[in-house]
Amino acid sequence: MAKRLRDYGIAYDCFEKSDNIGGNWYYKNPNGLSSCYQSLHIDTSKWRLAFEDYPVPEDWPDFPHHAQLLQYFHDYVDHFGLRDTITFNTEVTRAKRRDDGDWEVTLSTGETRTYQWLFVANGHHWDARTPVYPGEFNGYQVHSHHYRDPFEPYDFRGKRVMIVGAGNSAMDISSELSQRPLAEKLFISMRRGVWVLPKYMNGVPADKASLPTWMPTGLGRKLARKMIKKNIGNMEDYGLPKPDHEPLDGHPSVSGEFLTRVGCGDITPKGAIEKLDGDGVVFTDGTREKLDAIIWATGYNVSFPFFDDPQLQPVENKFPLFKRMVKPGYENLFFLALAQPLPTLVNFAEQQSKLCAALIAGEYELPPASEMDEITKADEAFHTGHFYDAPRHTMQVDFNAYVKDLMKEIARGQKRARAMA
Amino acid sequence: MAKRLRDYGIAYDCFEKSDNIGGNWYYKNPNGLSSCYQSLHIDTSKWRLAFEDYPVPEDWPDFPHHAQLLQYFHDYVDHFGLRDTITFNTEVTRAKRRDDGDWEVTLSTGETRTYQWLFVANGHHWDARTPVYPGEFNGYQVHSHHYRDPFEPYDFRGKRVMIVGAGNSAMDISSELSQRPLAEKLFISMRRGVWVLPKYMNGVPADKASLPTWMPTGLGRKLARKMIKKNIGNMEDYGLPKPDHEPLDGHPSVSGEFLTRVGCGDITPKGAIEKLDGDGVVFTDGTREKLDAIIWATGYNVSFPFFDDPQLQPVENKFPLFKRMVKPGYENLFFLALAQPLPTLVNFAEQQSKLCAALIAGEYELPPASEMDEITKADEAFHTGHFYDAPRHTMQVDFNAYVKDLMKEIARGQKRARAMA
Repeated sequence: MAKRLRDYGIAYDCFEKSDNIGGNWYYKNPNGLSSCYQSLHIDTSKWRLAFEDYPVPEDWPDFPHHAQLLQYFHDYVDHFGLRDTITFNTEVTRAKRRDDGDWEVTLSTGETRTYQWLFVANGHHWDARTPVYPGEFNGYQVHSHHYRDPFEPYDFRGKRVMIVGAGNSAMDISSELSQRPLAEKLFISMRRGVWVLPKYMNGVPADKASLPTWMPTGLGRKLARKMIKKNIGNMEDYGLPKPDHEPLDGHPSVSGEFLTRVGCGDITPKGAIEKLDGDGVVFTDGTREKLDAIIWATGYNVSFPFFDDPQLQPVENKFPLFKRMVKPGYENLFFLALAQPLPTLVNFAEQQSKLCAALIAGEYELPPASEMDEITKADEAFHTGHFYDAPRHTMQVDFNAYVKDLMKEIARGQKRARAMA
Repeated sequence: MAKRLRDYGIAYDCFEKSDNIGGNWYYKNPNGLSSCYQSLHIDTSKWRLAFEDYPVPEDWPDFPHHAQLLQYFHDYVDHFGLRDTITFNTEVTRAKRRDDGDWEVTLSTGETRTYQWLFVANGHHWDARTPVYPGEFNGYQVHSHHYRDPFEPYDFRGKRVMIVGAGNSAMDISSELSQRPLAEKLFISMRRGVWVLPKYMNGVPADKASLPTWMPTGLGRKLARKMIKKNIGNMEDYGLPKPDHEPLDGHPSVSGEFLTRVGCGDITPKGAIEKLDGDGVVFTDGTREKLDAIIWATGYNVSFPFFDDPQLQPVENKFPLFKRMVKPGYENLFFLALAQPLPTLVNFAEQQSKLCAALIAGEYELPPASEMDEITKADEAFHTGHFYDAPRHTMQVDFNAYVKDLMKEIARGQKRARAMA
């Protein structure tokens, strides 16, 4: 967004709580908001995550490590000379809309500044969500947000460990710790079955292979489902719970290791938790397992601690926005990358910024509020209508379809702007 | 073999150097001859390795851990009451054929005993083969035979490590140590490209899925090749050397992890070694890498240290035998499980024992020596003729084809025995 504003010659301030850029991809980010663990690789291939105006390094592996991704962001910022436009070590503690519509922004320095336009880009993988169960567990507990490696701050070697969850962090961390030289015994508690997609299908990165079927609508989704099912087979054949939905009717969990580790008996699947029970856990099927440690890989809340306005607080992670950016009535406020795009979030805001900058420059006009609501409803039905209902399924979008539609919307808004001029 | 002899009522002694059964599958075997590492799972699925007279446990995962396999052997021995027939902590130090044909066997106790028939079942995964290169390496070196886990006796964390080899141990150990919380950087040196087959294909254990194509002859092998290539793609797309042979024209390396780790950049492929160079290694392409540790996953020699007879010593691992058991001129000596069967060695001697016991019982007669030589040549052309020439390709057999042929041979030998009676 900063790059786009500079390209347009629009003055801006950019505040970053941390001492450097990278956010979630800044391993051990001193701002405490990164969820990176040491072994994390992005599950989107390099073929799909590059910015359109800055290529990824040619010598990258198909699925880069978090450190490579961070370096790419650093290179981007330096290449375009954006670093000096960012104010580091400065948190936005409060953002309040005045009666005249401008935004009053309070900084951790104590200073207050006023802006015509406000961009919220605070991420949605930092406010850890941990479910509450009856009882107490006496062992070590950590949310995956704070998991770093098998040894520090807790040494998982020789321990009986349970991962709770079925998303990407659950796949990665259970695969890592389940190895025989690490945990003595590893359980994964899943309330429902999910489809675990491989990183490679038919010898190519799965998100590259399946173009255009990974961005499926209608027939495309049907074909992709068939290919996935043929490739990975039945989850219950591995000893996993049978999913109650079809592949791609839930946000995919991606892992090149998980299914093999389950099939080798290194990971023992368990069902939902009934209660915590001192030195172990009781499951809804009545079984009990003694445990030394639990890792809650149970996802994140979407939250904006700097807003007091109750209209700007998501409810159960639901927060409908026009093109996932604009809340009608707040037309000078943009939420950036507040989505769960398939395949990736990395280069998503690059696309969104096109609409925002055009709007500020007067080249684009938003539709009326009521029309925005209508469009948002239709968009959500298109992008998430086929997903099962869950807090992790409130802002999925199909990247390619979203971008195609966004370009059309910008063209429509340009016409509106010209008509008003 | 012991079980079969007992079934036939044939008296036997069985000597085991170690304090217990299990051999290679006895982790940290005090006899020093087990190659098990802590994380080892067999790469044959449970569907293919069971003894025909003793089922594997129903709750086994598809690919059992070495500890489960060892337990299965213990259960087998105890179920059939064989334990008391084994003399533990007793090594055969010398075996010499006397002029009358009987075998004089010297034990580590100092005792010498005489036998009419001798069975050699000393395994072929214990005499580590390490290639010799010019120069010296100053870091830590170990053959995969002695590798146990990432921490003991050498802590690989934070180290620059190179695995040499492209077989199953190389796949497993490189996948394990390449993980970011373990080695700082992991190289694999491969003199030639190999095809790395997954543990699962189309959602089922690959050796189960591909029946009958995994036991391929002619068309079967062609179909299997096509399926494998479609499933795993081109090795060079992962950054690996392009194999100079087709899939199944070499003993398959099997790994559910290796290709993903290469594609994630955790494993860096290198070519052949030119020379060792103090704190690193120089490769034939002129590049050099600084290293802390080298693991030689370079296979094993076939050897029989208890034989003095030069006729009974393999040359470059080549040791042709009639039905992989009998050397013409030594018709009262059997080599058991001295083969590399596809998919597995686990239940191989169970089949071989049928011929041996029938011979001793007088129900089966071997063909004349010259005929045995002819048959052996034809068998080797059938089983290994399509493999590229290498010390690891001297005794491969296709399990199903071998067993089918063995049963036919036993029937032929029964006719010969009846004709002589």
